Amino acid sequence: MRICGVTTDLAIEAHDTLRAQTGQEIPGVTVDRRDFSHGQVTTVKIMDDQGAQAMGKPPGTYITIDAPALRVTDPEAHVAVVRELSEALKSFIQVGEKAGILVVGLGNWNATPDALGPRVANQTFVTRHVYHFASEHTPEGTRVLSALAPGVLGITGIETAEIIKGVVEHVQPELVICIDALAAGSVQRIASSIQLCDRGINPGSGIGGQRQGLTEETLGVKVISIGVPTVVHAALIARDAIVKLYEAYGRTPPQPAEMESIIQQLLEPFGGQLMVTPKEIDDLINNCSRIIAGSVSAAVHPGIDPNHYADYLQ
Amino acid sequence: MRICGVTTDLAIEAHDTLRAQTGQEIPGVTVDRRDFSHGQVTTVKIMDDQGAQAMGKPPGTYITIDAPALRVTDPEAHVAVVRELSEALKSFIQVGEKAGILVVGLGNWNATPDALGPRVANQTFVTRHVYHFASEHTPEGTRVLSALAPGVLGITGIETAEIIKGVVEHVQPELVICIDALAAGSVQRIASSIQLCDRGINPGSGIGGQRQGLTEETLGVKVISIGVPTVVHAALIARDAIVKLYEAYGRTPPQPAEMESIIQQLLEPFGGQLMVTPKEIDDLINNCSRIIAGSVSAAVHPGIDPNHYADYLQ
Amino acid sequence: MRICGVTTDLAIEAHDTLRAQTGQEIPGVTVDRRDFSHGQVTTVKIMDDQGAQAMGKPPGTYITIDAPALRVTDPEAHVAVVRELSEALKSFIQVGEKAGILVVGLGNWNATPDALGPRVANQTFVTRHVYHFASEHTPEGTRVLSALAPGVLGITGIETAEIIKGVVEHVQPELVICIDALAAGSVQRIASSIQLCDRGINPGSGIGGQRQGLTEETLGVKVISIGVPTVVHAALIARDAIVKLYEAYGRTPPQPAEMESIIQQLLEPFGGQLMVTPKEIDDLINNCSRIIAGSVSAAVHPGIDPNHYADYLQ
Amino acid sequence: MRICGVTTDLAIEAHDTLRAQTGQEIPGVTVDRRDFSHGQVTTVKIMDDQGAQAMGKPPGTYITIDAPALRVTDPEAHVAVVRELSEALKSFIQVGEKAGILVVGLGNWNATPDALGPRVANQTFVTRHVYHFASEHTPEGTRVLSALAPGVLGITGIETAEIIKGVVEHVQPELVICIDALAAGSVQRIASSIQLCDRGINPGSGIGGQRQGLTEETLGVKVISIGVPTVVHAALIARDAIVKLYEAYGRTPPQPAEMESIIQQLLEPFGGQLMVTPKEIDDLINNCSRIIAGSVSAAVHPGIDPNHYADYLQ
Repeated sequence: MRICGVTTDLAIEAHDTLRAQTGQEIPGVTVDRRDFSHGQVTTVKIMDDQGAQAMGKPPGTYITIDAPALRVTDPEAHVAVVRELSEALKSFIQVGEKAGILVVGLGNWNATPDALGPRVANQTFVTRHVYHFASEHTPEGTRVLSALAPGVLGITGIETAEIIKGVVEHVQPELVICIDALAAGSVQRIASSIQLCDRGINPGSGIGGQRQGLTEETLGVKVISIGVPTVVHAALIARDAIVKLYEAYGRTPPQPAEMESIIQQLLEPFGGQLMVTPKEIDDLINNCSRIIAGSVSAAVHPGIDPNHYADYLQ
Repeated sequence: MRICGVTTDLAIEAHDTLRAQTGQEIPGVTVDRRDFSHGQVTTVKIMDDQGAQAMGKPPGTYITIDAPALRVTDPEAHVAVVRELSEALKSFIQVGEKAGILVVGLGNWNATPDALGPRVANQTFVTRHVYHFASEHTPEGTRVLSALAPGVLGITGIETAEIIKGVVEHVQPELVICIDALAAGSVQRIASSIQLCDRGINPGSGIGGQRQGLTEETLGVKVISIGVPTVVHAALIARDAIVKLYEAYGRTPPQPAEMESIIQQLLEPFGGQLMVTPKEIDDLINNCSRIIAGSVSAAVHPGIDPNHYADYLQ
Repeated sequence: MRICGVTTDLAIEAHDTLRAQTGQEIPGVTVDRRDFSHGQVTTVKIMDDQGAQAMGKPPGTYITIDAPALRVTDPEAHVAVVRELSEALKSFIQVGEKAGILVVGLGNWNATPDALGPRVANQTFVTRHVYHFASEHTPEGTRVLSALAPGVLGITGIETAEIIKGVVEHVQPELVICIDALAAGSVQRIASSIQLCDRGINPGSGIGGQRQGLTEETLGVKVISIGVPTVVHAALIARDAIVKLYEAYGRTPPQPAEMESIIQQLLEPFGGQLMVTPKEIDDLINNCSRIIAGSVSAAVHPGIDPNHYADYLQ
Repeated sequence: MRICGVTTDLAIEAHDTLRAQTGQEIPGVTVDRRDFSHGQVTTVKIMDDQGAQAMGKPPGTYITIDAPALRVTDPEAHVAVVRELSEALKSFIQVGEKAGILVVGLGNWNATPDALGPRVANQTFVTRHVYHFASEHTPEGTRVLSALAPGVLGITGIETAEIIKGVVEHVQPELVICIDALAAGSVQRIASSIQLCDRGINPGSGIGGQRQGLTEETLGVKVISIGVPTVVHAALIARDAIVKLYEAYGRTPPQPAEMESIIQQLLEPFGGQLMVTPKEIDDLINNCSRIIAGSVSAAVHPGIDPNHYADYLQ
């Protein structure tokens, strides 16, 4: 259910909402859940077009790691998440040992809730320049990794996808890993879930709302995406408040269209582009960017032990 | 009306809400509105304890400059706001020509919506060191100005007020000007209002929610505060959505207590510390911090022409 | 005269040194000097291959604006420099009104002496996104401008030139303006000269020492470069100390080769990559980046008056 | 030997130079050297006034850890340095378990070579606010730690020592740990030595050249200082070039006074405040700030294992 054109970027949320609404399994979609020491790993597979249409997301595998300890200083839990995330990521990386891999950190480094991608790009253990210009110093146990934070349209004046296409054509990686801040459907998920997807980033995803997708179709190489919800659209908070109130009274909530018009009016001054985010967003982005950069480094470079991921953060 | 313990930091909003609810003038409070080329200047005076109690704010003069053009690139409008703000500020600065003035930029430089204060502190035209250590180079037309961004509790582990008290005792300014990001009651005000107050900052104000106030009582010198709303508490958005829906149906909204419990449940994961902020918050903070830093510099230093404020930004 | 492979990035210095050494005009090179209110403008034209070989720089026009007031807070002088620089830049911009122009800010935003380019890219008044996505809001008096700070090899693992080539192919500007921090031959020039060149950036220029040039040959569109010296190679300081001492004693300085070996030994631990830079480099970069961004904006956008450049800084 | 009023901030260098010049032990000074897995630890004790006068530094214990691997990505070596540094630091921390400790990060965050202190303050694991405001969540194995980066005179207009005095009076720690970027006597030491001292920071030390010392005398509580050389004064490079050249010719170098006048003339435009620093200073500061912040956290908080220091960096 879209309110003011917004919904969740998380496949797991889309699934759970749909499952609850329809009361039955969703054709063309499989879900597998398992626990780990500090949370849960859920794999949603959208198998076909029927599943894709129902879910509002393209076919692909969406792995979500839920770990509330992402929000607090808990090194043991963070290491456990890095182990899970780097393993899941490795299962998606099917390129040769010598293949170049490019990390793309999407988002706006000047706006904290949207700064996840650039932070990860900055902290990842990059090696490509050593291979190209000082190959006698190539660190053992590494692969050819580069990283870029292209900025956002409002800063550069250029569509992010165009920058990335141009760089991919010249750098010619065999795999692109995109990192982006996401919008969740509920504040429960903010900074406590990490979603991994083997189909890249689709138009309209992310806080920034990419106009063009970043996928194998647009870039010509396989694209893996990693995202963390850091905001919820304010429209969804407004809707949920109304729905919960009606539920409290045991009444049927108003039709979406009615709510839509009220909410649009309420959030009008910024064209609806209002985000709900926690006050301590800087700490949350800090935790998540460390964990994702560490997981990417550990998944790409066989010589980096996930248990010591923090030693390799830049 | 407080929801989940939150309300507005703006006297003008508190006044207008109360005026609308009661349908009559508020005893002990006077309001004066006038237009200028690009907006409106409203002066709310809380004259006595009766007014203070009704408004939920201490007695004092609260000047609000409303100018929607603060949100966009409009140099002409920005210069007009600097003229208004620096004039209003000058009317509050009643210290001798040789008196030291200290700017304090409150808030968290790592979280964009809360970064207004540190940005202003950083851009203000500081001169105190020239007077103290290179007095032969003292720029003409200036007064003795210093600036500090003390950080927030979560970064330093120290209550901000303690840092400021210590610095004030050693630097001995005759006036402190505090800058802080505020929380508004409505998204309409975000980054389009500037509030100036001659009574400092009171406990619980600002995004960061100072535990201790910064006032003449706590610091021993007069304190002027300047703030811009950069967020609205998510609880208020939820409440307003409910209220507006009921209004649309021509029904009386539920009691605050009922709404409170629904909303608390909805925003629970972050202890209610969820903020609504526009996606382009970085541009908004940029505009506002330039204008406030420029206005402070022009109000303090007689040699700086408000029309050329931008030339003196650091 | 190269010491440890380093020399000056400034044509004016190369010329003046050569002129002093040979005691005569340099064939294939013309020089024109004129004063303005706050400094001097020197135009060095390298006319042919003979001049190029003598100067160690490719044929082209090199305009240098010298203004010691760049180092201090002097708004009047800064406006005068913006007028000169934007005029000189306009004389180089020979593209149609609708043509797209791309600003490229070279250098490392994490190392202050090398951060000039990224700062300028960040402060320039970019409009391309408005033309492409909100053409009804296109600001009057502007042209289509975009800006990019591609980072440096050590951060991205990617050769800067490859990123720029890729972006140019996709964005298809008709003109590229590159900004870079330069190395001077003498500390006198640090942060007091701005060099403008109509032939782009050549391999080995800039603090970062681009491996590949950024020229019409490599990018396929005209390239203008703007640079400010922010460092002097430590090797040159060591050489000058020796030379000056010998001069003081009225003796002939040792042969370059002898000095070279001494100096190499002295600076060995960092492979000679040691830079001399003033302690207040942050203030200097701040002044220069404001002035260059303002000049670029004023030269590109007819609606921006150079006298009000500061109002348009982002 | 001072050149243009500058010398080294490192006791070990002062000692070694003096020892070489005089050819004998320095009365009132003891030196102890031992190796560890990745470098050397040297303890210089200045025992009395005679030693202090000879060395140009106040009596106290100066421990220097030399480890060239500080300059490169070598997690194993970095962990070894953290073990050494945190042990040495522990031997200096003689306050009770409940005592408050304040970290002060000196220097200018806007100038990379001077940004060490602020970086360390930012990355240290601060807990004081949890003890004061959420004592039910106090992390086990921690002590009461706070951290402050007061900025520099040019930014705030306030003498750093005044800010710190004020904060110390209000926060009342029993120990202050100051972190500062230092000036070495030779480029060999840049970013490869860490100096720890139990007598605080003395006037004129550090890149910023504190006008007032930060010592038990000025602050009223014990002060430990930690520093890393990140620059060499350009005057020393010039002097060394001359000296080495004379040595190469087997001649006696000129008198200091003669060299002084030459060098002063050479570096005049910036009042001699010219620093030599490596091009990759950002990486060096990054390595060193991580290691010092980790060592401070591990030395202060018994629950942090030095081998896992990186997990606790903020």
